[in-house]
Amino acid sequence: MSGPTFGPRISIEQVEEGKTLAPKFDSNGLIPVVTTAAETGELLMHGYMNAEALAKTIETSEAHYYSRSRKAIWHKGATSGLTQKVVEMLIDDDQDAVWLRVSVAGSGASCHVGYRSCFYRSIPMGDVAAAVENLKFEESEKTFDPVAVYGDAPNPTQL
Amino acid sequence: MSGPTFGPRISIEQVEEGKTLAPKFDSNGLIPVVTTAAETGELLMHGYMNAEALAKTIETSEAHYYSRSRKAIWHKGATSGLTQKVVEMLIDDDQDAVWLRVSVAGSGASCHVGYRSCFYRSIPMGDVAAAVENLKFEESEKTFDPVAVYGDAPNPTQL
Repeated sequence: MSGPTFGPRISIEQVEEGKTLAPKFDSNGLIPVVTTAAETGELLMHGYMNAEALAKTIETSEAHYYSRSRKAIWHKGATSGLTQKVVEMLIDDDQDAVWLRVSVAGSGASCHVGYRSCFYRSIPMGDVAAAVENLKFEESEKTFDPVAVYGDAPNPTQL
Repeated sequence: MSGPTFGPRISIEQVEEGKTLAPKFDSNGLIPVVTTAAETGELLMHGYMNAEALAKTIETSEAHYYSRSRKAIWHKGATSGLTQKVVEMLIDDDQDAVWLRVSVAGSGASCHVGYRSCFYRSIPMGDVAAAVENLKFEESEKTFDPVAVYGDAPNPTQL
């Protein structure tokens, strides 16, 4: 069984200045994906796609990722209902990163911990030793109860 | 010589809900970084930091990355003058991705090809075969001439 076919990477000029979609997947077959809220520009999450997830996202206009913890294609929102409708999808200069601008269904949350964005803590600047002990919560309330939504499903966070 | 010290990763709860900065570096010692323009929310670039680059960014409030092509710490803008002043720095739930909200010096460009954002091409949605041949340029003009700025420096894009 062969996967979806993307363009070949022939030259720097073709990759950077051409109209051919020639994504570079890493040694694990993945490409990083940056997902922002189309309405606000807020960064919601950072994930990964394999070639199949990229193709499914193009075909359906709903965000599909590759779950490294579950080792499977992941249709975002299939469990929680918080699907991500793709408003615009872009690729960077050397085609090794994807940007999804999405509109999220329901409450608009995108984080399995319950927050709106996965990036709910800021790092104080200036001194490394002080920063290590003082992450600051920028979101004060969860938008949903993860236990109610996910039940006993394994937490995707890996130590 | 030991590098900068970040927190230990003890439990999922501590990583997700704690105040300790305990970043997860991958097998190459890197963590992905999403950089957006603080003023507009536009995604400027997707890069990587090692522990030293993360520490230098905290200490100086100027974005430092790790260049995978040059295999060296990279003070963004050291050559072009387009430094990135960090307005806010955040980390995600499982602490394996960093978000930099920056204000860019000079013209505000962040892409070595000359465009403002590295993400200057969109992927048309609906059909994979059509998408592969039809990337669409969303920026029409370069903000600087890469040859004038970088001269004979090797292009960082890897095929």
